[in-house]
Amino acid sequence: MKNILQHINKAFDHRVRLGIMSALMVNESIDFSTLKELLGVTDGNLASHLKSLEKEEYITIEKQFIGRKPNTKYSITKLGKLEFTKHINALEKLIRKQ
Amino acid sequence: MKNILQHINKAFDHRVRLGIMSALMVNESIDFSTLKELLGVTDGNLASHLKSLEKEEYITIEKQFIGRKPNTKYSITKLGKLEFTKHINALEKLIRKQ
Repeated sequence: MKNILQHINKAFDHRVRLGIMSALMVNESIDFSTLKELLGVTDGNLASHLKSLEKEEYITIEKQFIGRKPNTKYSITKLGKLEFTKHINALEKLIRKQ
Repeated sequence: MKNILQHINKAFDHRVRLGIMSALMVNESIDFSTLKELLGVTDGNLASHLKSLEKEEYITIEKQFIGRKPNTKYSITKLGKLEFTKHINALEKLIRKQ
């Protein structure tokens, strides 16, 4: 029997990561507070998922100052786009079986 | 801004649980070893995810003997079907945004 989970990527397993990647697929970059609001999560929770995705090189972080205020922006990488697309195709295949 | 994760169900967050529920949506019941093979996971991993889904009353467990061999079968509940369908619709909405 076939392993039906073989193309499902562990790195995207959590709904917060799905949300981050989905949002970054359609926006060139998004800052921390916008992402936080969009996903309805705490600072710590969001930061930890962003860190994991950065470690996998699926997203990049750009730190800058707007006036005196620090501002951190996130973007998806080429690798991130590729892997997330694969993941979504696998997910759709899995759930489409119903 | 809208919370884009609001209808994503935490209980289905892990890919193994997605796999279990997807398989049980289309089969009246499945036994432990078939599920294990289908998902390519270890006994302990599968048992722990099955327990969580049972606790939520999304699946039921039926223990029986086939000859002298114990056999455990799993089925989806009405609640499980309802909640999983909601989850899938939310997932599709989220990832369809790209």
